[in-house]
Amino acid sequence: MNPAKGERAFVEWVRQQARMPDRVTVGPGDDAAAVRIPGATELLVTTDMLMEGACFRLAEAGPRRVGRKAIAVNLSDIAAMAGRPLAAVASVALPRTMPHAQIQELFLGMKEMADEFDTAIIGGDTNSWDGELAISITLLGEATARGPVKRSGAKLGDWILVTGPLGGSILGHHLDFTPRIREALHLHQCVELHAMIDISDGLALDLHRMCDESGCGAILEADQVPINDAARQMKDDKSALDHALGDGEDFELLMAIPAPDARQLLANTSRPSWPLFHIGEVIERGVWINEGGQRRALPALGYEHSFN
Amino acid sequence: MNPAKGERAFVEWVRQQARMPDRVTVGPGDDAAAVRIPGATELLVTTDMLMEGACFRLAEAGPRRVGRKAIAVNLSDIAAMAGRPLAAVASVALPRTMPHAQIQELFLGMKEMADEFDTAIIGGDTNSWDGELAISITLLGEATARGPVKRSGAKLGDWILVTGPLGGSILGHHLDFTPRIREALHLHQCVELHAMIDISDGLALDLHRMCDESGCGAILEADQVPINDAARQMKDDKSALDHALGDGEDFELLMAIPAPDARQLLANTSRPSWPLFHIGEVIERGVWINEGGQRRALPALGYEHSFN
Repeated sequence: MNPAKGERAFVEWVRQQARMPDRVTVGPGDDAAAVRIPGATELLVTTDMLMEGACFRLAEAGPRRVGRKAIAVNLSDIAAMAGRPLAAVASVALPRTMPHAQIQELFLGMKEMADEFDTAIIGGDTNSWDGELAISITLLGEATARGPVKRSGAKLGDWILVTGPLGGSILGHHLDFTPRIREALHLHQCVELHAMIDISDGLALDLHRMCDESGCGAILEADQVPINDAARQMKDDKSALDHALGDGEDFELLMAIPAPDARQLLANTSRPSWPLFHIGEVIERGVWINEGGQRRALPALGYEHSFN
Repeated sequence: MNPAKGERAFVEWVRQQARMPDRVTVGPGDDAAAVRIPGATELLVTTDMLMEGACFRLAEAGPRRVGRKAIAVNLSDIAAMAGRPLAAVASVALPRTMPHAQIQELFLGMKEMADEFDTAIIGGDTNSWDGELAISITLLGEATARGPVKRSGAKLGDWILVTGPLGGSILGHHLDFTPRIREALHLHQCVELHAMIDISDGLALDLHRMCDESGCGAILEADQVPINDAARQMKDDKSALDHALGDGEDFELLMAIPAPDARQLLANTSRPSWPLFHIGEVIERGVWINEGGQRRALPALGYEHSFN
């Protein structure tokens, strides 16, 4: 996490280069960008590239699950803006040796996930090369009438919530998760979502991002952080809590909601049955965790895309 | 060009898998897809992936020109629909060893080309991996009030025109071309464009595509096909004409226009000064070329993306 390098620094540099036209209502740096098309609601645009070795291992996962994941990670970004998915395009660099049946399975996996969320795959670009498999999806969505939910709106006193248990996704969840589109749309309808982000690179890191963008801090309660069973099955020297805090690719939603709204939401017994956990609160500055009565600083643990 | 394999067969298979929702007004298989956003004009979406070795050689071309090309090929697809570019997202797989300065140059090349056509780069995904450089751009545009121009509208008797000289693009033009956005918008305003495609894979192949989609044939006049100087400089056993017919990546526009409109257009002396060549006519069936008084069948020469 050299401050001059890596994805975050690069996005910052990109931001400085460009003045966005007025039609761009959310620019680079959030889960998706938003463009206002005259006469229509705001269009959400997100893109994610998955590459062999970095984001999946084709031989282990199989092409169908890789295809599903390629669409699902993009749906997750639209969920994080509380948008409705509309359509996707897929560009793919196929290894020359990849068998036809595997290519079809890859596409069927994409289609399966896209269909589940009523998202048409409307175009693409398929190429072969001497390199390994790389898949880039761009997903278009539309903001609801309440507008897109950015990372930057968290306010002092907001409750911090998360939609599911975290950690250990490498054991399978990172391929088989369900993007939280339905949950996000429901929440956006019934409470004021101040800020939201999908946990793609780890709870701690994504919480830092939300706080940075919102100009605030946060404190988590260690015993309230929901821990996935997979996090307990990890065979290494990190605790299950550390996995929940630092592992990437959970693809649950992390959000800041005004305390009264959040309290009412959690108390509502006729709420749909999917989980929602109150894990902390927005404070003025710093990112902290309370563990066993001790408050300690929570570093931005997680997966940061590093490059030169 | 095994009919069961390659990009064309794959796109056909993809088309069969999917029923497009009503909001998708142009689905897979054209230069760009089109989506109708309620209350707005039609949104155009195109994606193209460029890969080291297949579409550029970074060491020869330099990162700036590679960045320009990545945006330009997508702008060319929007031009082929006679659309206005709006915004782009870029996802990039960077080799781990790529120096920071080169990454910046790559991005500046993208930005340079995007700026030239008032296109904001609104988001992206940057990753590094052990593989070679791959860049996927998705470009959004909007159709004008006259709607998108598809490949499928050519009609018997239409004149076939092209916006510039062809062939030999491998000598440099494939990196340094200017996408024909302005030309397409001008043409769309002043004549009825029945069908249009950008010449990305070779005049002969792209003409075959237009004819296939339109359910018609075409005949070209060999001595009217404009030949690029670069095509004459190619040091191989193919004629300059063969290069003009079969080389990919010219990125000129190929179109079918009703004969009276085309005649008037070419006769108009106050027309903007960019070139426009009348190279043939739409006929009932077959794709032919007249050369030295002889009509011969014109095979679908060109670059077809092959994979298993």
